[in-house]
Amino acid sequence: MTSIRYDVLGLGNAIVDVIARADDDLLVKHGMRKGSMSLIDEARAAQIYDAMGPAMEISGGSAANTIVGVASFGARAAFIGRVKDDPLGNVFGHDIRAAGVAFDTAPSADGPSTGRCYVLVTPDGERTMHTFLGAAQDLHPRDIDDEAVASAAITYLEGYLWDPPHAKEAFRKAAAIAHQAQRQVALSLSDAFCVDRWRDEFLHLVRSGVVDLLFCNEAEVRSLYQTADFDTAIAALRGDAPRAVVTRSAKGCLVIEGPQTIVAPAYPVDRVVDTTGAGDLFAAGFLFGMARGFEDERSARLGALAAAEVISHLGARPETSLRALAQENGLLK
Amino acid sequence: MTSIRYDVLGLGNAIVDVIARADDDLLVKHGMRKGSMSLIDEARAAQIYDAMGPAMEISGGSAANTIVGVASFGARAAFIGRVKDDPLGNVFGHDIRAAGVAFDTAPSADGPSTGRCYVLVTPDGERTMHTFLGAAQDLHPRDIDDEAVASAAITYLEGYLWDPPHAKEAFRKAAAIAHQAQRQVALSLSDAFCVDRWRDEFLHLVRSGVVDLLFCNEAEVRSLYQTADFDTAIAALRGDAPRAVVTRSAKGCLVIEGPQTIVAPAYPVDRVVDTTGAGDLFAAGFLFGMARGFEDERSARLGALAAAEVISHLGARPETSLRALAQENGLLK
Repeated sequence: MTSIRYDVLGLGNAIVDVIARADDDLLVKHGMRKGSMSLIDEARAAQIYDAMGPAMEISGGSAANTIVGVASFGARAAFIGRVKDDPLGNVFGHDIRAAGVAFDTAPSADGPSTGRCYVLVTPDGERTMHTFLGAAQDLHPRDIDDEAVASAAITYLEGYLWDPPHAKEAFRKAAAIAHQAQRQVALSLSDAFCVDRWRDEFLHLVRSGVVDLLFCNEAEVRSLYQTADFDTAIAALRGDAPRAVVTRSAKGCLVIEGPQTIVAPAYPVDRVVDTTGAGDLFAAGFLFGMARGFEDERSARLGALAAAEVISHLGARPETSLRALAQENGLLK
Repeated sequence: MTSIRYDVLGLGNAIVDVIARADDDLLVKHGMRKGSMSLIDEARAAQIYDAMGPAMEISGGSAANTIVGVASFGARAAFIGRVKDDPLGNVFGHDIRAAGVAFDTAPSADGPSTGRCYVLVTPDGERTMHTFLGAAQDLHPRDIDDEAVASAAITYLEGYLWDPPHAKEAFRKAAAIAHQAQRQVALSLSDAFCVDRWRDEFLHLVRSGVVDLLFCNEAEVRSLYQTADFDTAIAALRGDAPRAVVTRSAKGCLVIEGPQTIVAPAYPVDRVVDTTGAGDLFAAGFLFGMARGFEDERSARLGALAAAEVISHLGARPETSLRALAQENGLLK
């Protein structure tokens, strides 16, 4: 058995966020679904960018945000994802490496430019996202570094990988390598509409044991089981997933394993500035705790703390050391 | 006489800021001059970027920040500056236009990439800047839109334009057009080390009447007259400049015109997060007031208010409507 080199390795779409504040009117005018993520092509990206106010660029990508959070807690972390060799690809690579994450996926020399997510943040702190996948579209099974995956205690995969054509094969390959090396595989359901696009395949992943741990929020689990009733969805999830964490925004989260349920509270936040990355950073704290062998409740509290940090400012990456924050809050020594 | 189309037109280096928090140790280790702006080539830019933590990209450029501030107060504003037709040039163009500024300078099709300023923000909120001018290097007199300048009540020029080889000719051309149309010309001294590089030429601009209004801070006016004594510098400035505004950080500012001196206070700020853009936004408020025909003291208060807004967050562009902020503070109806 290979020795453990990484606590968590993430596989996801490598994206730079283009973030601007927006009024609700703008969303209505452009027929946008508040709080969701929509995939767009380059022409629609140009339209949306034209409609947006002055913006800022901050590296993003769901699993990438999670992995940066894991590194910020002080764990060993790696990321696999595809950018282009262009200025925004350079920004993505700089930011993730500067956060202490190993990132060795070769950038594309040609083809579409580095992926971008246009994030509109309304006054209530909610984010509405439109993603041009760009180079992330071209993640292939050959981009999987077998040795890196085999030497990671947990491999973390985002549901958004089901959108690009070959990324799901990369996902399956990584999951197989991880299990062969007797490692854990975690999946995030990413977005309720993403679940809508890929429901059957996600259910199959969960039921067939490809995934050991599932992360989702209320809307995603309801979408997965096509029910408006949360309890019905949870009962179904309990039967399907070996282990699942369901986040419920200010209501905290549930950790479900067989008949057992652990409930953990959210951390209070003075003012929600931008919810982008809340789920990603929750996963970061939980995965970090899991890699350290903590009890689920402590891991959930670490997740809640990281989520509280990221929603208190613009952008989906932590602005402070999560390790120091966890120490201040008595969750780490 | 052409009718007035713009209240303020700015001419400057078109730059995207790459902003990261940094410890003082990093500045010491890399031999950086805290609080200053240094010019760098692409190789040094790569070195500095490698040494920086995770960053965010926000459009910048000294005069560009000022002009965006002027537009945020609700005035008609235009900007002339050179980017390349590349992703960061696209970011710069989007952000300035989305702020309501007319920006029609054609981007370079080839040559160096869009200019970048690497901004290191230390825990005290001070910023240390390293600028790769890139495409801004190629601003030429032919980029001056004669009609736009002639129809702007005030043409505002940044001292940094003395660094690129042909930009000073563009500057002189714009100043001549403005004066021919009986408009006002304002200049910012930009940075004490920039003054050090171009002292004689800046003094000549001020003494020969090319400039009607000079903006500077304490360090810059002391550098201009090569004296450590502030009062000596102010006495010399009074003899040379038809009109000058000297900003003194938390001590407020002086407006000097012949024997007359007006003193205006700074606005209190809860916590200084990032001083980048303080001088740029002070100039925005003052120029806006001047364009509206306000008394100097009211214009200075508008400047102080805009500076207070910009130093309370990361980045050198306002995050809120300066018009609304001025109304809340009783400076505008």
